[in-house]
Amino acid sequence: MTHTVTAGIILIGDELLSGRTKDTNLSTIAKWLEPLGVQVMEARIIADDRSTIIETVRHFSAQFDYVFTTGGIGPTHDDITADCIASAFDRGISEREDAMAELRTRYSEEDLNAARRRMARIPDGASLIKNPVSQAPGFQTENVFTMAGVPSIMKGMLADIGHRIQGGAKVYSRTVLAEGIGEGDAAAPLAEIEKDYDGVSIGSYPFFNQNLTGVNFVVRGRDESVLDEVEAKLRTLANSLTS
Amino acid sequence: MTHTVTAGIILIGDELLSGRTKDTNLSTIAKWLEPLGVQVMEARIIADDRSTIIETVRHFSAQFDYVFTTGGIGPTHDDITADCIASAFDRGISEREDAMAELRTRYSEEDLNAARRRMARIPDGASLIKNPVSQAPGFQTENVFTMAGVPSIMKGMLADIGHRIQGGAKVYSRTVLAEGIGEGDAAAPLAEIEKDYDGVSIGSYPFFNQNLTGVNFVVRGRDESVLDEVEAKLRTLANSLTS
Repeated sequence: MTHTVTAGIILIGDELLSGRTKDTNLSTIAKWLEPLGVQVMEARIIADDRSTIIETVRHFSAQFDYVFTTGGIGPTHDDITADCIASAFDRGISEREDAMAELRTRYSEEDLNAARRRMARIPDGASLIKNPVSQAPGFQTENVFTMAGVPSIMKGMLADIGHRIQGGAKVYSRTVLAEGIGEGDAAAPLAEIEKDYDGVSIGSYPFFNQNLTGVNFVVRGRDESVLDEVEAKLRTLANSLTS
Repeated sequence: MTHTVTAGIILIGDELLSGRTKDTNLSTIAKWLEPLGVQVMEARIIADDRSTIIETVRHFSAQFDYVFTTGGIGPTHDDITADCIASAFDRGISEREDAMAELRTRYSEEDLNAARRRMARIPDGASLIKNPVSQAPGFQTENVFTMAGVPSIMKGMLADIGHRIQGGAKVYSRTVLAEGIGEGDAAAPLAEIEKDYDGVSIGSYPFFNQNLTGVNFVVRGRDESVLDEVEAKLRTLANSLTS
């Protein structure tokens, strides 16, 4: 059995819990990790609360190979993620010259007020993550990557993280559409097919659009030739159910 | 100080962690809870994994006043949420006549195969939650509400939950837009304003649209007259920064 390389994602921000903002970062990070052979095992959406952030970071860092955090590294008083990461690893934190240099490529000395200089506070020993969108950097502390919450900035930071990831065997997936059926029609035969193949998981996802209902069968696994075989069986099943 | 009524949300499903599906249920539930005076403290997105579901449900049920789960109560072999909820509360689980009656309003006896009958498996002592969209019910076990993962069905179930919630003092919010500024311009004055008001929190949320950048200030609190006052200060601040 191949070792699974795992990740946990921590989405930080009161605005996600109030429903004001819908998270899209989880999906972006998970899809980006897939070709690297890293599987997201759990995600937590937590408030801008010091003890919750520290506990969650410690727990995830111990539990998973890689941890990604988003949110809370901006210039305002409720941006406390950097300080919490330092505390989680019992490290100091201070304004760092390498981070200030990044900020100076964007802001004039006049615009570099106390609030913006907070974005140059980096936990001791952490390495910077480049921010090609708005310069204020993210940072890596041990196996934890701390990124911005704004989706476009977060995406930009991923480009400077890929080379730091030691991935595993890639997981591939195939999707087969079965129009007009309900999940319950396919449940038993799907379970039968899954039983025949080790290391393969099959999910069924119903959809309800205005003009079309049906189920998507999604098979996932590491061996593409096995997936080809399973996909063929799923097509036969879909045809037999929809005809 | 008014007691805060709290909630935790558990989003269950491999498809959320793979990035295949973007969750919208958290935002729907949080916005629905807001006028009831219930605050979402944390959300976790977890896999269809027995021990993770059981542990998370136990932890959240002890930690928060109310818990909402979505996903994993359909007819397929990976729909294991109902069994996990029963285990989390050390209860038995069986096909229940009241749940079968709901299913019979939708399915003929012929269509009520073994897979679909699984949707009538309900933890002992749990009360049903009506599903006006596709009939297969959710259920309430102590302070845990177990709902479907499909957003339209989940929304339908909320209608049968509202009367079971003992809410707290409603939290109100006001939003003030400051066009063309950066978060760092407002950080210090925002912190000053927040310091002057107990029980009020102010967040700042930058946005970057094609033709417009700026920051939304969002103030939240329980006393509307205080919010009026803070909102006026935020407007003055926004005007002074953008002019």
